[in-house]
Amino acid sequence: MRAVDIIIKKRHGESLDEKEIRFFIEGYVNGEIPDYQVSALLMAIFFQGMSAQETAALTQAMLDSGERINLCGIPGPFIDKHSTGGVGDKVSLPLAPMVAACGIKVPMMSGRALGHTGGTLDKLESIPGYMTSLEPAQFRKGLLEEGFAMTGQTAHIVPADKKLYALRDVTGTIESIPLITASILSKKVAEGAEGIVFDVKCGSGAFMKSYDDAKALAKSLVATANTMGKRVVAVLTDMSQPLGYKVGNFLEIEETLDCLEGKGPKDVMELIYWLGAWMLLLGGKAKDISECQNLCQEAIESKAALKLFYRNVVRQGGDLEEMQKRRGSWRSEFSMEIRAEKDGYIVSIDALRIGLAGVYLGVGRNRTEDCVSPTAGFIFDKKSGDPVTKGERIATLFGKDSQSLEDAFPIALDAISIGDSAPSASSIILEEITVS
Amino acid sequence: MRAVDIIIKKRHGESLDEKEIRFFIEGYVNGEIPDYQVSALLMAIFFQGMSAQETAALTQAMLDSGERINLCGIPGPFIDKHSTGGVGDKVSLPLAPMVAACGIKVPMMSGRALGHTGGTLDKLESIPGYMTSLEPAQFRKGLLEEGFAMTGQTAHIVPADKKLYALRDVTGTIESIPLITASILSKKVAEGAEGIVFDVKCGSGAFMKSYDDAKALAKSLVATANTMGKRVVAVLTDMSQPLGYKVGNFLEIEETLDCLEGKGPKDVMELIYWLGAWMLLLGGKAKDISECQNLCQEAIESKAALKLFYRNVVRQGGDLEEMQKRRGSWRSEFSMEIRAEKDGYIVSIDALRIGLAGVYLGVGRNRTEDCVSPTAGFIFDKKSGDPVTKGERIATLFGKDSQSLEDAFPIALDAISIGDSAPSASSIILEEITVS
Repeated sequence: MRAVDIIIKKRHGESLDEKEIRFFIEGYVNGEIPDYQVSALLMAIFFQGMSAQETAALTQAMLDSGERINLCGIPGPFIDKHSTGGVGDKVSLPLAPMVAACGIKVPMMSGRALGHTGGTLDKLESIPGYMTSLEPAQFRKGLLEEGFAMTGQTAHIVPADKKLYALRDVTGTIESIPLITASILSKKVAEGAEGIVFDVKCGSGAFMKSYDDAKALAKSLVATANTMGKRVVAVLTDMSQPLGYKVGNFLEIEETLDCLEGKGPKDVMELIYWLGAWMLLLGGKAKDISECQNLCQEAIESKAALKLFYRNVVRQGGDLEEMQKRRGSWRSEFSMEIRAEKDGYIVSIDALRIGLAGVYLGVGRNRTEDCVSPTAGFIFDKKSGDPVTKGERIATLFGKDSQSLEDAFPIALDAISIGDSAPSASSIILEEITVS
Repeated sequence: MRAVDIIIKKRHGESLDEKEIRFFIEGYVNGEIPDYQVSALLMAIFFQGMSAQETAALTQAMLDSGERINLCGIPGPFIDKHSTGGVGDKVSLPLAPMVAACGIKVPMMSGRALGHTGGTLDKLESIPGYMTSLEPAQFRKGLLEEGFAMTGQTAHIVPADKKLYALRDVTGTIESIPLITASILSKKVAEGAEGIVFDVKCGSGAFMKSYDDAKALAKSLVATANTMGKRVVAVLTDMSQPLGYKVGNFLEIEETLDCLEGKGPKDVMELIYWLGAWMLLLGGKAKDISECQNLCQEAIESKAALKLFYRNVVRQGGDLEEMQKRRGSWRSEFSMEIRAEKDGYIVSIDALRIGLAGVYLGVGRNRTEDCVSPTAGFIFDKKSGDPVTKGERIATLFGKDSQSLEDAFPIALDAISIGDSAPSASSIILEEITVS
């Protein structure tokens, strides 16, 4: 088997078989196939695509390049949620304890902020003392005792994905549906998920800006996961404006606590109940989605979810008391307000521009080695559809320093449009894909 | 300027500008842009193509990566011919002295056999003593005195092409019209050609098997060369059966001498008169193609072309007497005959199969480091359209050893089909492309 023949086969639009895909991935990881052949294949895949069978074989080969989380001895069901990333997307934080309170095990491996999108690990680390690099034994203990644990990916999990992603990043091959699918799915399967709810974001603040692209990714994720024998659903959700009223690191921890107390923003609550219900349904906790939603609501109303979150904070080294003390008052001294320039209605708050302004403030980062600020971010007083009067405050920006405010302010200002009439109200849930 | 942005631009199907193309080629040659970004760009070019302007910019950037042949002080016009390669294609050998005899300067740089196609340098080196690596001063002297000289490419000529070709070979990006165009054209311009006649072969033994592909390459060559201000024509010629009656290295030198004596095979003579006439026309030696053909015929009939070939052989170190002595008698001791299995007509002699059988015999090579045999090859008694009777000899194979005959024989046998009626006669010249 020669690498060049496999490249040409894909270039011609033919399907690669399982052996050919494995030959390429194994050869790449062990250094036998050079970068330049892999990047040529990736570009050919970009143009010619891959079937669900091919994508499943790619996912499996990537998965087999590393270790899997050992969940032996822990009773399931293991169900996880994956979001394709957005602005103000703190959903994982209240969701995991909520579904754990309903008897689902959530072996959650999260990522960091990059570009305009936030990162669950960065948010958690804004809790004083909270550690996101768990040893396997600690991760297992968290799963056993709270039903969930929050950790970052180790180097041993899907090393092929790290190597491929770094290559895709510099060769213009990021935006390929099968490659994105295999990257997402290989990590979720490696962490032991039996069922996965995919939150595929769509809109300016999402990785997939267009509805068609988001839907294509959702279908690919479902088809590939089904081929691999996983129970999954993909929910297309709106990411044209930031989620909730708070965007930042500790600011989103605060909003997480609001959610766990049952008083979170309407859009975030809608999303966690919906995604949570699907996780319960995939985990066989009830027979239909409305029953599952009731169970989720009970977990919130009984404070069972909140208590599990507290226990997780303590287990992972977080200072619960300090977190509580800082809640609502830990603010950067560098702040600026955006006020309405005229009477009217908020027509839109562009998620991408808010995310990019957030990078300047210190919420996110442009390069993986950059630091983030725990207190940087946005508090919105208004969201799309809200009426405003001239001079009324719409949002407050908090920056890591005064320069960051100067840089972020015009971008954030530009993100907000005021019109004469309210836009028509729309649900955050756009569509569900359950079969390919 | 970032390499990845240029890759993505091409991936989107946009045109690259001259600066972007130069940035990539210069960066690649000086080691600043790694192989893996170049192979991704090459694959994107494979799928998205390039305009004549882009291809001209690529050709120019490749050209500027190295030196050009210094032809200062030598009176022109400098006109060359380029063939895309075939089986039994010895056309360059009689053509160069023929047009040189008409006052055209032919600064010919040729290649070696690779795969099923033969190489002019290998054929020349079968003349005892003949050297194909000329110093620039020797090359100039040959051009001044005989009007032509035959040499291989040096490492200083278009180094970008060598690096790119090696990368394309292992990344499945050989078969791209703009990349092939730039590779061919950059070398021809570097050797100083002001006008070029492209012999674009078409058929089983050609690089471009289909008429459409060959025509697309011909058009791209003409359009790109015109953009660069060169006078060119592309002639599509048939390569479904081998050219002439002899295929090999010294065997083709013998047939070259036949041509220069005016008694070459009909197809080869037709081709050298046609391509030669175009070279004269591009060089402004007469006002129309038929007048140019007459001049070519005179050069052959007067033996002026033959005498120039002899002088070239001597200049380049060849042993003229030994060449003459071996002519018609220097044969490998390992030979086998193919005889007709039934009465009928030769319907086809598949050029690709003959070329591939030739690699076994020792005419060509699979890898650049392999050696070729001077006496290996084929002598055909019959060509397409000829009647045969059962048991009559169709061809004789000469191999480098007995094993090579065993390997080549079944492939060569399979190349020859005999039918009940003669195929309709067709010209070797299929079409001419003069404007894009």
